[in-house]
Amino acid sequence: MYRHTRELQFTAKPEKPDALFAMKFQEILGGQFGEMTVMMQYLFQGWNCRVPGRYKDMIMDIGTEEISHVEMLTVMLARLLEGAPGEATEKAAATNPVLAAVLGGQNPQHAIVSGGGARPTDSLGNPWNAGYIAASGNLLTDFRSNVAAEAQSRLMSSRIANMTDDRGVKEMLAFNLARDTYHQQQWLMGIQMLIDDGYIDSQIEQSNGDWENKDAAHVFYTGTEGSAAGEGLWATGNSLVDGEPLRAEELRPLPREDGSLDDGTLPAPDPLQFVTYDGNQGPGKPGTGAGAHLQGAQNVVTKVKDALTGDD
Amino acid sequence: MYRHTRELQFTAKPEKPDALFAMKFQEILGGQFGEMTVMMQYLFQGWNCRVPGRYKDMIMDIGTEEISHVEMLTVMLARLLEGAPGEATEKAAATNPVLAAVLGGQNPQHAIVSGGGARPTDSLGNPWNAGYIAASGNLLTDFRSNVAAEAQSRLMSSRIANMTDDRGVKEMLAFNLARDTYHQQQWLMGIQMLIDDGYIDSQIEQSNGDWENKDAAHVFYTGTEGSAAGEGLWATGNSLVDGEPLRAEELRPLPREDGSLDDGTLPAPDPLQFVTYDGNQGPGKPGTGAGAHLQGAQNVVTKVKDALTGDD
Amino acid sequence: MYRHTRELQFTAKPEKPDALFAMKFQEILGGQFGEMTVMMQYLFQGWNCRVPGRYKDMIMDIGTEEISHVEMLTVMLARLLEGAPGEATEKAAATNPVLAAVLGGQNPQHAIVSGGGARPTDSLGNPWNAGYIAASGNLLTDFRSNVAAEAQSRLMSSRIANMTDDRGVKEMLAFNLARDTYHQQQWLMGIQMLIDDGYIDSQIEQSNGDWENKDAAHVFYTGTEGSAAGEGLWATGNSLVDGEPLRAEELRPLPREDGSLDDGTLPAPDPLQFVTYDGNQGPGKPGTGAGAHLQGAQNVVTKVKDALTGDD
Amino acid sequence: MYRHTRELQFTAKPEKPDALFAMKFQEILGGQFGEMTVMMQYLFQGWNCRVPGRYKDMIMDIGTEEISHVEMLTVMLARLLEGAPGEATEKAAATNPVLAAVLGGQNPQHAIVSGGGARPTDSLGNPWNAGYIAASGNLLTDFRSNVAAEAQSRLMSSRIANMTDDRGVKEMLAFNLARDTYHQQQWLMGIQMLIDDGYIDSQIEQSNGDWENKDAAHVFYTGTEGSAAGEGLWATGNSLVDGEPLRAEELRPLPREDGSLDDGTLPAPDPLQFVTYDGNQGPGKPGTGAGAHLQGAQNVVTKVKDALTGDD
Amino acid sequence: MYRHTRELQFTAKPEKPDALFAMKFQEILGGQFGEMTVMMQYLFQGWNCRVPGRYKDMIMDIGTEEISHVEMLTVMLARLLEGAPGEATEKAAATNPVLAAVLGGQNPQHAIVSGGGARPTDSLGNPWNAGYIAASGNLLTDFRSNVAAEAQSRLMSSRIANMTDDRGVKEMLAFNLARDTYHQQQWLMGIQMLIDDGYIDSQIEQSNGDWENKDAAHVFYTGTEGSAAGEGLWATGNSLVDGEPLRAEELRPLPREDGSLDDGTLPAPDPLQFVTYDGNQGPGKPGTGAGAHLQGAQNVVTKVKDALTGDD
Amino acid sequence: MYRHTRELQFTAKPEKPDALFAMKFQEILGGQFGEMTVMMQYLFQGWNCRVPGRYKDMIMDIGTEEISHVEMLTVMLARLLEGAPGEATEKAAATNPVLAAVLGGQNPQHAIVSGGGARPTDSLGNPWNAGYIAASGNLLTDFRSNVAAEAQSRLMSSRIANMTDDRGVKEMLAFNLARDTYHQQQWLMGIQMLIDDGYIDSQIEQSNGDWENKDAAHVFYTGTEGSAAGEGLWATGNSLVDGEPLRAEELRPLPREDGSLDDGTLPAPDPLQFVTYDGNQGPGKPGTGAGAHLQGAQNVVTKVKDALTGDD
Repeated sequence: MYRHTRELQFTAKPEKPDALFAMKFQEILGGQFGEMTVMMQYLFQGWNCRVPGRYKDMIMDIGTEEISHVEMLTVMLARLLEGAPGEATEKAAATNPVLAAVLGGQNPQHAIVSGGGARPTDSLGNPWNAGYIAASGNLLTDFRSNVAAEAQSRLMSSRIANMTDDRGVKEMLAFNLARDTYHQQQWLMGIQMLIDDGYIDSQIEQSNGDWENKDAAHVFYTGTEGSAAGEGLWATGNSLVDGEPLRAEELRPLPREDGSLDDGTLPAPDPLQFVTYDGNQGPGKPGTGAGAHLQGAQNVVTKVKDALTGDD
Repeated sequence: MYRHTRELQFTAKPEKPDALFAMKFQEILGGQFGEMTVMMQYLFQGWNCRVPGRYKDMIMDIGTEEISHVEMLTVMLARLLEGAPGEATEKAAATNPVLAAVLGGQNPQHAIVSGGGARPTDSLGNPWNAGYIAASGNLLTDFRSNVAAEAQSRLMSSRIANMTDDRGVKEMLAFNLARDTYHQQQWLMGIQMLIDDGYIDSQIEQSNGDWENKDAAHVFYTGTEGSAAGEGLWATGNSLVDGEPLRAEELRPLPREDGSLDDGTLPAPDPLQFVTYDGNQGPGKPGTGAGAHLQGAQNVVTKVKDALTGDD
Repeated sequence: MYRHTRELQFTAKPEKPDALFAMKFQEILGGQFGEMTVMMQYLFQGWNCRVPGRYKDMIMDIGTEEISHVEMLTVMLARLLEGAPGEATEKAAATNPVLAAVLGGQNPQHAIVSGGGARPTDSLGNPWNAGYIAASGNLLTDFRSNVAAEAQSRLMSSRIANMTDDRGVKEMLAFNLARDTYHQQQWLMGIQMLIDDGYIDSQIEQSNGDWENKDAAHVFYTGTEGSAAGEGLWATGNSLVDGEPLRAEELRPLPREDGSLDDGTLPAPDPLQFVTYDGNQGPGKPGTGAGAHLQGAQNVVTKVKDALTGDD
Repeated sequence: MYRHTRELQFTAKPEKPDALFAMKFQEILGGQFGEMTVMMQYLFQGWNCRVPGRYKDMIMDIGTEEISHVEMLTVMLARLLEGAPGEATEKAAATNPVLAAVLGGQNPQHAIVSGGGARPTDSLGNPWNAGYIAASGNLLTDFRSNVAAEAQSRLMSSRIANMTDDRGVKEMLAFNLARDTYHQQQWLMGIQMLIDDGYIDSQIEQSNGDWENKDAAHVFYTGTEGSAAGEGLWATGNSLVDGEPLRAEELRPLPREDGSLDDGTLPAPDPLQFVTYDGNQGPGKPGTGAGAHLQGAQNVVTKVKDALTGDD
Repeated sequence: MYRHTRELQFTAKPEKPDALFAMKFQEILGGQFGEMTVMMQYLFQGWNCRVPGRYKDMIMDIGTEEISHVEMLTVMLARLLEGAPGEATEKAAATNPVLAAVLGGQNPQHAIVSGGGARPTDSLGNPWNAGYIAASGNLLTDFRSNVAAEAQSRLMSSRIANMTDDRGVKEMLAFNLARDTYHQQQWLMGIQMLIDDGYIDSQIEQSNGDWENKDAAHVFYTGTEGSAAGEGLWATGNSLVDGEPLRAEELRPLPREDGSLDDGTLPAPDPLQFVTYDGNQGPGKPGTGAGAHLQGAQNVVTKVKDALTGDD
Repeated sequence: MYRHTRELQFTAKPEKPDALFAMKFQEILGGQFGEMTVMMQYLFQGWNCRVPGRYKDMIMDIGTEEISHVEMLTVMLARLLEGAPGEATEKAAATNPVLAAVLGGQNPQHAIVSGGGARPTDSLGNPWNAGYIAASGNLLTDFRSNVAAEAQSRLMSSRIANMTDDRGVKEMLAFNLARDTYHQQQWLMGIQMLIDDGYIDSQIEQSNGDWENKDAAHVFYTGTEGSAAGEGLWATGNSLVDGEPLRAEELRPLPREDGSLDDGTLPAPDPLQFVTYDGNQGPGKPGTGAGAHLQGAQNVVTKVKDALTGDD
């Protein structure tokens, strides 16, 4: 269960409003790698977590902090939008290039839809969606996604931080950048603890690893003509799983034990689905089509019409 | 530029068709962590890569391999769908529980839309979308996203592999699992090489790290009452960035230097946006609203109507 | 800022697992009118609210409660999914119609993606998205959206409640239904308070009402031949705004003061956009097209080619 | 069945084109609360309506009018886009700040995709989608959604109206605002008629109300520290359903009859889904996993490996 | 402007309800190629059409008919859903395989969300969205899209028609199939009329055709090893535009006049965007970054740190 | 299987960077009719194709070429973005209208998300999604979609080409326009070959054509008052299918053989779904509702409460 305190986790006051910057700032609130993403990602991971104690608590703790971050960012946005030229017309820009830039670049939904408040979208207005988040129940894979999310989020925040000189904005971003630095470590250390606690064997996700194709787990395939990638550690080092040497090979179709290759030829289609077909695999059969006999199938789109006529 | 060979990278032949399994199998083709995701993610990272040679080639190589994987999976799907009961009606299920399960569970778009072919969607029919992929130009953050994508992808493939006994499907998945094992290592080793080559200082994304809030980069905040998370490495270890000790603190609003907290109070809104407001920050100003004087703003939704009347 | 307590707001324990019901249950978690929607809707409304005190606190309070509801529903889902036949194949259904129903109907992503945990989607797997929520800054319109959201949410919960006999599920839903009953009242009473406090004049949103077309605000237009709708209160009663009588009229094109109608004829298109056009409004002009003279525009898709030739 | 008349319901002629305003104007055509939304919402409600006569006719009538509104707005947009600087380059802006604003701010798809015509999107280019509409078959809930939709729509139109001085645009918007004023009343009066006609007992959706948790239907929970929300009517008034007094309580985990609370601990996961788990609920069982014995499950991601070995 | 008649364009009465078929039937209502798509596509094309008279009227006529088709399909769906086992639990399936199939396969939103009414989605619940429609203002390209839409729509309807024996459904589909047959012709004949009326020169879209790369307009590139595609008319026939012979060539990088090829090397990145870069194009410049000097850029992610230090 | 060559198919070098043009240029990369669409459309059609030899090879060949086109466009975009004013603030625009235009109009995600690289989105930031592509297995319908896609794509490219004077961009677009010209022909000739090879009878999709409603296949319905569309070939010519004359008729409800019309009245709803209903079709029955008797259904939302009471 959750409780709320009026005070923000960190002060979110810009020196002065800036509608153009507010448009960009939405990216770290409602974008693919914004705070809404980590908030929802950690909350779902935490609620679904099957390891009570320090793991579940840790995920819950950071999820709770991220709700607080989303709150900070929405407040910052509403303050950046104070006095935005919501109703200024193109005429107003005639003698004012700064206004022209803002007029052209501001987010119209900041005025029309939210009335000067934050929007649950990215910098181009794409609504946040749950297709951005990962919560698999497997802590290794999820911690992997989390360290990636924090790294991408930190990078976006850094780029946005370079787009303003506002001391108030920068002070809050200095806090956010630090949290992203810390949280990357948190997840990396979480992976280390999973190993120490015996939940996983290595940093590599290996479920069903006992029957994977061992050889294919040690090869880098070069698909680019003249590729220099064979020089990389990934082709000259040893496997992180079993210590066996890795190698590079040219990407090519791999034969089965009998030497055969697969040319991707498909089976005969269901004639009642009117798929274009030349009969090379013999006639297809209707998918237990209840109504096949009713329709006569006279105009089935195949070259094997005659063969089919007697067939259903 | 790309070229194509008819033969598949690996054989994709099920022992027998299975429409119910085909429905689930779509998840690793067109789902959030399916092969379409890594294919498009690596292609965009490769095309946008600014480090020619082994880094760019490596990304291009794996991107090219992933196109080949998507091809393998589409062929597998079309073969799994051979003879699917596309037209069977509910009556047909009366004496046949297996058919009942397939009828209920098969993907109707496999018959109606693709005519027995693979669909560019996940197991529930969500069309693949580019909001799944990451390509930032920063190799550390992108390699982080890549190792996460391969780990999640491997986990999904493992789960799906446990849903079938088909030897043909399992043989192909044994190959895919191995590639995911390998590719996770590839990206982890790529991060190591970025450090060795001097592109980054550590595994932590640190752009603009010189002015981040140093203290906030060393604290784990516990937001859950009675949290046990303070026992974790993330609160008892040392920073991966500067070696300084990490610590846990209770999540609470952080004061500025002058001791003040931020209660999130917002500025006065633009009266022409009709935001409900009690005047606590004084009257708001129209956003250089060209038409303000025309409309009189008589019914502005605020309690400060009088103050405003003389204002525009 | 937010804090978390391990205990749920209300017990979320089913008597026994039920994977088929879990599939449907997702609708009230991540659907258009599910708990994620009201949670995010109230949080954004609260953070953007410009009336500190009882209004802002009230919205914040309910937003905080809704996070707790989302938590309850995710826990319920994970418990409903215990022991779900995630790996059962179609063969397993041969002698077991119940299994056949579950096999066909269960959500494959519950096994493949979330590993037996809740998903941030609706019952058909559509990821939750922020296009479901409203937060305009205007409390009347938002309270309107809120009472609608609670009513729809309650109806969906009622329908789902009728789909199970599980005492544990029903006990939790009895709590949820009650909260939806209460919350509908809360928002209706909130509208009454907005009137009492002088923020609005009536239950009708009337911004810029001073210059709206008064006559058009009193007419019901019947667009259906032989419509009986003219008998409704909406055509026989008096306006809720000014008490003037309402009336019904047949839907028809309304003339301007000079009696003219508008037949929707469009202006001449920009010839460089190759819009098909018969010249009825004379030749169009390139949109200050920098490169017009370079391209010759010889094959512009209009019938007025000759006229245009001399024009640019 | 539908028929069409060439003349528009109301004249849609701007005094002069304005590409920048056209970009914003899209919001009330194809946005979440635009005319496409109410058109599709009312059409689906009407077609699905089970009360022939004045209710069904009324919904059909307004649905038909809304198709006509969408038509008006598309015509207005095409006229606003006349002569838009579709091909102007950045060089052209050098001596022209107005052009600079338009260049920056205009919607590129107005030139590239629709050739100067209206787009079925909002002001930021999000395609309209059916996730915006509600049609439940229950008239109380749907009329609730309808009055909300009209109120939000009217507010957006008001805000946009303040962004232009064009007399032609304002004249059409004066008509649209009036229709939104009227339509809000129409749905409110519709709810009153549902009560008068005996379809519902009150303005509160109460399906399955006989077994809801009565106590929980009378409490406002304060989740914010020091919340002032307890002063509201919602905590000091009486229930709109049964007249019993409402009250405020602090948000807290609610015990069952036996005093127990629910800490959200989850059941043991299916080991074949490789969910991280510490065994606190004993070993999990494969979900009748057909292939369990084949795979050995040697590398299951749990600490209870030994226990499991003998288990399947 | 639009008007409505109660009677449907064609009778939409199934012999008996069928919830499983209703689930599939949604595809031709709200799917990518369903009736909602052609309805909205033709309406937008018609409203935006710049050729009044027979072209605009024709598009308006068919758009109006399609609204009527959507109406027919929604009615059919509501009737197919009569008595659907909305509340049946998995227990109910124990002795009833038919029920098991329906339970598994029915669309849960038909019960939960629409209460037995049609949904504005496809067969898998994806909400209809405006990204499915085309309306460019250019009649050749749009008629092309229209004939494709009608052909795809007819194919989906055919496939679905084979999934039922219900005489009532088949009678309505016989009408729909015929309309799709007719409408394909209508658009093909529309293209012929565009040629006859002098709006276009051929069936090929050729805007700016005077300066396209003539040679590249006559070559088929074979990108597949051993491709047999060179035998096709597209490589052995003559151009439909100028009658010149077409030919096949192997896909390969094409040199510029000076013989050079483009290896895709990218320019130096903006150092303030922290893109990984090896300096091969010299140091990048901040994008007129206002705050560059403030941040020192000490940790810019490039190997050219030293060079940069003096640069800003 | 696929292989990659470093060299691009065609040179993609602009004379100089242009961030404003880059924003627009995204439309032909990741828009509805951009190169990503044809790439994925052809790849899925090819992989699913059941006619090995020249048809399958042809589709594979063009699919492979389109991957190469997407590569060209991403490179062009990264070069257009060189030195883009990513960090410039509004202050910087004060004396620089060109910068003002760019500041307002540039795509913020080009700086924030991709670091100066191409994005997998359209010009307004909508992520590419698979709902744009068609792959039905039926070659006639798919070739129809392909010729439409190439025509729309060519038109968008033409419009964008008119928005720049850059010789490098125009040279590449001259190549792209030519390929679109060629590819339109390729698909049209493909349809001709399908006829010549006996796969289809005409250019009209006619699956199940033997039982369609023959009369309805020959009529143009005029739904617009005073429509001039009856003059078109589509109403005065002969059927392309059977040579019979076509005709125009006024759109009207069509009677069944017994003269009856369908007024769309719906059946009684399931009372447990709480659909508003006046009892005109008698009482509805719960959908084998397991729990009906438990709930009493006392507050079912119908007027036929009494009748129902004895019913369950």
